[in-house]
Amino acid sequence: MGKLISSVTTCSYRLLLINQNKHVSNKFNVIDHNRRLIPHFIRSSYYSTSPGVTHHCSPVPLKQFLARYRWDLQKTSLIHMQNTTAIQYRNFASVASTSVQRNSLFSTLNDDDIIYFQKILGVKKVIQDNEELQAANTDWMHKYKGSSKLMLQPENTDELSQILKYCNSRCLAVVPQGGNTGLVGGSVPVFDEVIVNTRRMNNIISFDEVSGVLVCEAGCILENLISFLDKKGFIMPLDLGAKGSCQIGGNVSTNAGGLRLVRYGSLHGTVLGLEVVLANGSVIDMLGTLRKDNTGYDLKHLFIGSEGSLGIITKVSILTPPKLSSVNVAFLACQDYISCHKLLFEARRRLGEILSAFEFLDAQSMNLVLDHLDSVRNPLPSSVYNFYVLIETTGSNESNDKEKLEAFLLHAMESGLVTDGAIAQDFNQSSSFWHIREGVPEALMKAGAVYKYDLSLPVDKMYDIVEEMRTRLGDKANVVGYGHLGDGNLHLNVSASQYDKDILDQIEPFVYEWTSRHRGSISAEHGLGLMKAEKIYYSKSSETVQLMASMKKLFDPNGLLNPYKVIPTSLLL
Amino acid sequence: MGKLISSVTTCSYRLLLINQNKHVSNKFNVIDHNRRLIPHFIRSSYYSTSPGVTHHCSPVPLKQFLARYRWDLQKTSLIHMQNTTAIQYRNFASVASTSVQRNSLFSTLNDDDIIYFQKILGVKKVIQDNEELQAANTDWMHKYKGSSKLMLQPENTDELSQILKYCNSRCLAVVPQGGNTGLVGGSVPVFDEVIVNTRRMNNIISFDEVSGVLVCEAGCILENLISFLDKKGFIMPLDLGAKGSCQIGGNVSTNAGGLRLVRYGSLHGTVLGLEVVLANGSVIDMLGTLRKDNTGYDLKHLFIGSEGSLGIITKVSILTPPKLSSVNVAFLACQDYISCHKLLFEARRRLGEILSAFEFLDAQSMNLVLDHLDSVRNPLPSSVYNFYVLIETTGSNESNDKEKLEAFLLHAMESGLVTDGAIAQDFNQSSSFWHIREGVPEALMKAGAVYKYDLSLPVDKMYDIVEEMRTRLGDKANVVGYGHLGDGNLHLNVSASQYDKDILDQIEPFVYEWTSRHRGSISAEHGLGLMKAEKIYYSKSSETVQLMASMKKLFDPNGLLNPYKVIPTSLLL
Repeated sequence: MGKLISSVTTCSYRLLLINQNKHVSNKFNVIDHNRRLIPHFIRSSYYSTSPGVTHHCSPVPLKQFLARYRWDLQKTSLIHMQNTTAIQYRNFASVASTSVQRNSLFSTLNDDDIIYFQKILGVKKVIQDNEELQAANTDWMHKYKGSSKLMLQPENTDELSQILKYCNSRCLAVVPQGGNTGLVGGSVPVFDEVIVNTRRMNNIISFDEVSGVLVCEAGCILENLISFLDKKGFIMPLDLGAKGSCQIGGNVSTNAGGLRLVRYGSLHGTVLGLEVVLANGSVIDMLGTLRKDNTGYDLKHLFIGSEGSLGIITKVSILTPPKLSSVNVAFLACQDYISCHKLLFEARRRLGEILSAFEFLDAQSMNLVLDHLDSVRNPLPSSVYNFYVLIETTGSNESNDKEKLEAFLLHAMESGLVTDGAIAQDFNQSSSFWHIREGVPEALMKAGAVYKYDLSLPVDKMYDIVEEMRTRLGDKANVVGYGHLGDGNLHLNVSASQYDKDILDQIEPFVYEWTSRHRGSISAEHGLGLMKAEKIYYSKSSETVQLMASMKKLFDPNGLLNPYKVIPTSLLL
Repeated sequence: MGKLISSVTTCSYRLLLINQNKHVSNKFNVIDHNRRLIPHFIRSSYYSTSPGVTHHCSPVPLKQFLARYRWDLQKTSLIHMQNTTAIQYRNFASVASTSVQRNSLFSTLNDDDIIYFQKILGVKKVIQDNEELQAANTDWMHKYKGSSKLMLQPENTDELSQILKYCNSRCLAVVPQGGNTGLVGGSVPVFDEVIVNTRRMNNIISFDEVSGVLVCEAGCILENLISFLDKKGFIMPLDLGAKGSCQIGGNVSTNAGGLRLVRYGSLHGTVLGLEVVLANGSVIDMLGTLRKDNTGYDLKHLFIGSEGSLGIITKVSILTPPKLSSVNVAFLACQDYISCHKLLFEARRRLGEILSAFEFLDAQSMNLVLDHLDSVRNPLPSSVYNFYVLIETTGSNESNDKEKLEAFLLHAMESGLVTDGAIAQDFNQSSSFWHIREGVPEALMKAGAVYKYDLSLPVDKMYDIVEEMRTRLGDKANVVGYGHLGDGNLHLNVSASQYDKDILDQIEPFVYEWTSRHRGSISAEHGLGLMKAEKIYYSKSSETVQLMASMKKLFDPNGLLNPYKVIPTSLLL
C-alpha cells in the first residue's frame, strides 16, 4: 500500500506516490520528468514547454474564466471559419434547406399583417429593418440563412399569444427565436417565416431562497440568471459556453445539456413548470413550482427539447442547486480506453456525491491541441499517453473534498488505471486543464477540414467507433475522439487537409448506422433542427417518429410552428 | 462562537454546545434532561421513559430495517383498519365508483374471448379462479373493489401486445396492474375490465456497472431490483414502503415519489427509456440507455405518471446511483415553523451534496405518536417543542460527513434555529428516529377517525393551511401536519373521535381551494386514479386538462386503458 505525500512551495504543490518497494525522490521539478521511475501526481502551476520554467497566473474565479474562455473560443472559431475555412465548411455542411420546398399552404406576409402587428405590439416591437433582419435570419455558425421580412418582439405572454393566434388564422408560418445560438439551424427561418423573438420577455418573476425555485420569463439570458442566483448563493443547474447570449426559453426548448449535466441531470429533472403558448394562441399554464405533483399527465416534458415546434415557451420554473464552495480539477493519463472506462466506474463510487465532470480526450486530440493552440501546455509532458481524463469535483468542504480526491487518485494509480496525472492547485491551473479539453474544437478548425459528429453511445462502446473509423480511413484522415465520458457523449471528429467526397462517403452513412446499431443517439445535445430532421430514424423507431408526428399534428394542425424542422416533413403533409 | 465537544462511552456519544459565556457540565445522563441550561445534541442509545435506563439494540442495516419496518407498518395499519376502523374509514372514503357509470360502449367478456386468450397465452396465464380474482379486484387499502372476471398474466411484450390488440378490436376495457399497491384506486377494475397483470414479466435485461444503467422488465419487484443492485454496489433512485410488492412498471406509471426524491429527484430525471404497448397493441420502443438524446420529442415522459391510461409500460431503463457507505440521522426540535423553513435553507447550503432527507412533524403529530405507539420514545423528552425535524445525510466518507453534519448543527444551534436535538450513533437509533416520523400515520389510525390529505405546497406556505384548518375547526378536531419538508410535501391530517359530516364540510372543498389558490398539488405523489380524477381542476388549468384529454383520445381512441381514471370522464365522451 502506498501513500500520497505532499510538499507545498509558493507556486507548486506535489503529490508523489510512495510504494514500499520503490524508491523515489520527493524532490521534483519539470526537468525530472524523464527520470521518473513511477507515475506521480503533481499540483503545479502553469507549465511551460521550457524545462524548469513556470508561469504564474493571477487567480480568477474558475467559472468566470471558463465561461469567458469558452465563449471567446466560439467567437474565435467563427471568425476563423469565416476568414479562412468558410468555403470548405459550407461545402461540407449538409444544409437541408436546399432539398426542402416551401410549404405552399403557408400565406405570404402582406401590409395588412404589418399594420395588425403594429397595432397590437406598437411600432418598435415590429422589426423590418434590414440589418436587424439579416442578423436574425442567419444562424450563429453562418450555415443557415432564411429570408424572413419580419421579426416580432412581444413583451409578454399576452402579446405573444395574440401574435400566434393571428398567424394561425392567417396561416403564416413562425420561427420562435431566443438567443439564436443553436447549431442545427433550428432558430432561424428556412424561408420567409415570421421570426418571433422572446428577448423582451426577460423578467425574473420570483425566487424562493429556501426551495431554490426560480421562476422567470423565457427571454432571460442564461448568464443574467446565473449572476442573479450567484448573489443569492445558488447556481443554474445548466451552464453553457453560449450563456452570454442564449435564453432560458431556448435552453429548455432544445433541452440544452452543457457542463453540469453529469452532476445535476437534464432539464427534464430540473424544470418544474412551464407556461407555453400553442400555435393557435392558447396559453397553457403549467408553471408549477412543486417538486412533487402527480395530477394528470406531465405535459411540460413535451415542450422540453421539442425545439419550439409544439409551442413557444414563455415562462420557466426551475429548481436551482445551492452554490458549493470547493472545486478541484485533476488531469490524468491512461494507457487505454478500458482504463478510462474503469476510472469512471471508480470515480462514481469513490467520489460519489462530489463528482461534477468526467471528460476525456485521446492522444490524437491532445496532439492537435498542442500543435495548433499556442496557449496550451501539456501538464504531463514526460511521455505520450494514449488517453487523458479531466476530473472535476464540486462540494461544500474544501479539505474533505481534497482528501477524497487524493484518496481516489492514489487508488487509481495503485491499481494501474492511471499512469500519470496532475492536480490543479488554483483556479488558473484548473482553467488551463479545462483549456486543453475545451481547446480541441478550435484546434480541429485550425488543422484543416473537419467532419464533426456529436454522438451519445453506451460508455463501453463509445471508443470502438473511433477505432473502426480509423481502420476505414487509414492514412486519408486523422480521426480523433473526445467528449463528456461521464455522460456517454462522444465528439467524433475526422480531420483532413481538405474536404473530399471519398472521405465523406467512408464516414456516412456508416457513422449513423453504427450509432443506430448500438442504440446511440445521432444528436446528443444539439437537437435535430433543420440539419438532422430527416435523419431522425437513425435514433428513433418509426413507430415513435410516427407518434411524434401525430403529436405535432395535434398541437399545431397547420404545421406553422418552426416548420421543416425536427420531424421529417413528409410525415406532416 | 461555541464548539461541539464529544465524549464516547460504550453505548452513548454526546455532543454538548459550549458557549464562551455559559457553563455546562460535560457529563450527561438522561436524568439530567430537566436540568440542562442550554440546548445540546446527544448521540445516545435508545431512550427509555425510565430515567437513566437505556436499551441496547443489535445493529441492523438501516435501510433493511426501515424498509421492513415501513412495510410492516403498512400491513399493521391495514389489519388494524380492517378489524376496528374499517367502517369509519370506508364511510369517509370518497369512492368515486358510486357516481361512475359503466361505459356502455365497452363489450362484455364472452367464452370466445377466453378461448382466444388461452390460445395465445396458454391456460395458466389466463386466470379465472375466484380467489385470485377477488384479490386482484380489490385494492390494497380495501377501499375499491371491481368485478373483473378475468386476469391475464402475459410473460413478454409480444403476448401483452397481442392481448391489447385483441381487446382493442373487441372493445374490451383493460386495467393494467402491477403490484396493486396504489392508494387511489388506480390499479383495480372499476367494473368488469380485463386485468392485465405484469408480474410474469420480471427479468433483468442488463446492467452496466460503469454507467449504472439498469434495464429490466416492468414486472420486476422493486425490492428484487434493490437486492440485485446492492450486490453490484448500486441503489435504486427510489425507495418505497411497498417495495416488497410494488413493481417498477407501476412505480414508473405512477411516477412514485418515495424516500429518496429529495436527493435523486423524480423518475422524470432518472428513467432513461421505456418500452410501452399502446391500446391498439403497437409496441413503442423508447428503451434508450443514454443520458443525452435530443432526437425529437421525448415521449417517454408522457407515460411516466399517466397511471397506465396512455399505454402499458413493458420495459424500463433507469439510471441508478452508486451506493454510498455513510448514513447519519439527526432528530431536532424547533420552536416555530419559520425556523424549520430556515433550517432547510441552511441544510441545503451547508450539507449540500450529502443531504438525503429533510422531514418534519409538528407537536400534535409527536403527541399522537407518543400516545398511541408503545414502541416510540421521545429522544428529546426534556421539554415540549412545537416542531421536530429529521435530517438524514448520505455520503461516501463517514468522518467527513459526520464533521459536516456536526458543523451544520452547531451553526443551527448558535443561530437559534434549533432548540434541542440528538444525533443517532448507530443504525438502531437512526431507525428509532425514523420510527417517530414514519409512525404518525399509524398513530392517526389508532386515534380514531382521520381525514387525510397529501398536498404539495410552496415550502413557505406549507404550514399556513394547518393553522388555518385549526382555526376553522376549533375544538371539533385535532389538526396535525407532517411530511417531506425537503420536497414541499405536506401530509395534512384531521383527527377526530368519529367521522362527522360537519367536520368534512369544514375541510372540503376548503382544503382543495386553498391548495389551488397557492398553486399547490392535491396529489403530491399518489396520482389521481379513480379517487381524484374529477378533482384534477384544483391543480391543473382547464386548458391543460383539455390537452390531456386530447392526448388520451390520440393514444387510446376507444378509451379502453384504465377507464374512469385520471381524466374526468366527461371529457372523453
